[in-house]
Amino acid sequence: MDSVAAVPSALVEKKSNAAGREKFMDVYQQLKKEILSDSELVTYTEESRAWVEEMLDYTVPGGKLNRGLSVVHSLELLKKDTPLSEQDTFNACALGWCIEWLQGYFLVMDDIMDNSVTRRGQPCWYRVPKVGLIAINDGIILRTHISRVLKRHFRQSPIYVELVDLFNDVEYQTASGQMLDLITTPAGEVDLSKYVLPTYLRIVKYKTAYYSFYLPVACALLLAGETSVAKFEAAKEVLVQMGTYFQVQDDYLDCYGAPEVIGKIGTDIEDTKCSWLIVQALKRANESQKQLLKEKYGKKDPACVVEVKRVYNELELQKVFEDYERDSYVKLIADIEKLDDQALQVVLKSFLAKIYKREK
Amino acid sequence: MDSVAAVPSALVEKKSNAAGREKFMDVYQQLKKEILSDSELVTYTEESRAWVEEMLDYTVPGGKLNRGLSVVHSLELLKKDTPLSEQDTFNACALGWCIEWLQGYFLVMDDIMDNSVTRRGQPCWYRVPKVGLIAINDGIILRTHISRVLKRHFRQSPIYVELVDLFNDVEYQTASGQMLDLITTPAGEVDLSKYVLPTYLRIVKYKTAYYSFYLPVACALLLAGETSVAKFEAAKEVLVQMGTYFQVQDDYLDCYGAPEVIGKIGTDIEDTKCSWLIVQALKRANESQKQLLKEKYGKKDPACVVEVKRVYNELELQKVFEDYERDSYVKLIADIEKLDDQALQVVLKSFLAKIYKREK
Ligand SMILES: [Mg+2]
Ligand SMILES: [Mg+2]
Ligand SMILES: [Mg+2]
Ligand SMILES: [Mg+2]
Ligand SMILES: [Mg+2]
Ligand SMILES: [Mg+2]
Repeated sequence: MDSVAAVPSALVEKKSNAAGREKFMDVYQQLKKEILSDSELVTYTEESRAWVEEMLDYTVPGGKLNRGLSVVHSLELLKKDTPLSEQDTFNACALGWCIEWLQGYFLVMDDIMDNSVTRRGQPCWYRVPKVGLIAINDGIILRTHISRVLKRHFRQSPIYVELVDLFNDVEYQTASGQMLDLITTPAGEVDLSKYVLPTYLRIVKYKTAYYSFYLPVACALLLAGETSVAKFEAAKEVLVQMGTYFQVQDDYLDCYGAPEVIGKIGTDIEDTKCSWLIVQALKRANESQKQLLKEKYGKKDPACVVEVKRVYNELELQKVFEDYERDSYVKLIADIEKLDDQALQVVLKSFLAKIYKREK
Repeated sequence: MDSVAAVPSALVEKKSNAAGREKFMDVYQQLKKEILSDSELVTYTEESRAWVEEMLDYTVPGGKLNRGLSVVHSLELLKKDTPLSEQDTFNACALGWCIEWLQGYFLVMDDIMDNSVTRRGQPCWYRVPKVGLIAINDGIILRTHISRVLKRHFRQSPIYVELVDLFNDVEYQTASGQMLDLITTPAGEVDLSKYVLPTYLRIVKYKTAYYSFYLPVACALLLAGETSVAKFEAAKEVLVQMGTYFQVQDDYLDCYGAPEVIGKIGTDIEDTKCSWLIVQALKRANESQKQLLKEKYGKKDPACVVEVKRVYNELELQKVFEDYERDSYVKLIADIEKLDDQALQVVLKSFLAKIYKREK
């Protein structure tokens, strides 16, 4: 029996994923080193260099890295049979890290605004005693690093301007989504009449979908030499839909996922989140259910959470979600298959396959 | 007697300044309008559009506008005899506003980190009851607007990349200066041993000098078509020195300026600021004076402030400042006159003339 053929393909994929992740982490170390020894514009002190290093290690690489890694993966798919050159791989990793840096920046700021306690299994950066509100400036520093990385590695490239514009555009969209979220569902104030589907969809689209789904693919398309504006627009259309579907799943799993699988105990109900579930429940509830949701949503008391969940179950939200999931999938596949670029189809289907019916 | 000739030249300059300021404010209104109707990347809701408009009016145009206006003035001087075209004037105003937006962004964030109470004669933006920490995202929004303005008005221009790089570079320097300030002189903690001249100079250089002095002139040079890297470097060298001198004046006036002239009552001593005065005092103090400064600096009690000021007077800091001011002036003039670009000399001398021996 051939021992190589005996390796289950899932395991092979895991191995190659592990190698990809290792390479990706190597690039993080390199980018960090370059930033810490960057003396073109600023002369660091020992103290501030140590601060930046600690801050980076704490806030940038600790997530799942899906967004960053997907730049590499997408570029591989776009290049089809040609394996990536060393330089292509490095460039894709560097842009992947720019996305992770962007996320780190937004999460550092978001946690302060949301008064959050933990992030990625450790106290939020601003909760580290010596940090406090210095975290605001650290967030700004993270943002400036994106410009530094782009300038150092792409300034001479024909796609430099497109890259800079892309990151600026997506930052603008993400910040606008945050604003919509902050002013339509302000912390501490509960006004469930604002929790309606168009508002929900708008917040999710801007706050999450552009940077999580469109940005990695747009980076890969630029690296692949794509210049057709129509192609970027078509990809964006699909990916923003997919990002919305992804967030709906996130909201669903917060309530119905297995805590040991998703790695946390959901608290969207206690936190008065404008979740897809509460939006759907309010849309379907009769007067007495509506009354109950108004009274019990956003309370820390576990008994209130149980009552909210009972209404969710009465309204069969699990079934509503399953229908939504199936419909989204069908529509996304149809939209993807309308595109005439086969490689792009593969990229988009690969994204969809990664999230369809995910349990975590 | 010629009635025109009878108008004192200072009054003529004031009149033209007033016209320039009016034109500058018109451009603010236009840029704001463009931002609020910008639907290329984001569809605003009525509520969020109103929020952004209020936030802009509150945080952007309320300062002295010196930095922004100096782009226009510098460009006029660089163009010598040729009056600025409508387009040149607009471009200079737009870049001037980008600097004011950048400052607004940093001040909104800085006030939160410093727990400040008022700014430009009104409560800090984050102190407005409905705002609170949403101000952090508003700061981010301000930053994104700079990219929007640059893209809208300069994307087709040959200087687009240089402009984007310039604003990114200066943002990086300013954020680095903030970091140095925040970690070497953290709020609440008093460690006067850190208040030494090299630290002071480094903080001031990065936190203030680049964006306040170099950035406006660099914008004007780019608009004037300047491409010599050496010229930008030479201007930077002088302007960063000038920015340092400007901040030393600011620190001096906080203690020795006339409150009715500077428009506020200084509180650097109460606020434990790493001011040029305390740095100079610690350098010159004998053991008993040092002891007194350690005990009394950073206390709200007016009696403590009086004692600190007594030590300043014993050490003749007013004279130390006068010597510094004269020496700085002589050195700056000498450095300026070493440059071979006459128009640039005029620009730099005009900057210096505006701040030399200023009383506010
Ligand atoms: Mg949050
Ligand atoms: Mg949030
Ligand atoms: Mg969630
Ligand atoms: Mg401050
Ligand atoms: Mg400060
Ligand atoms: Mg001051």
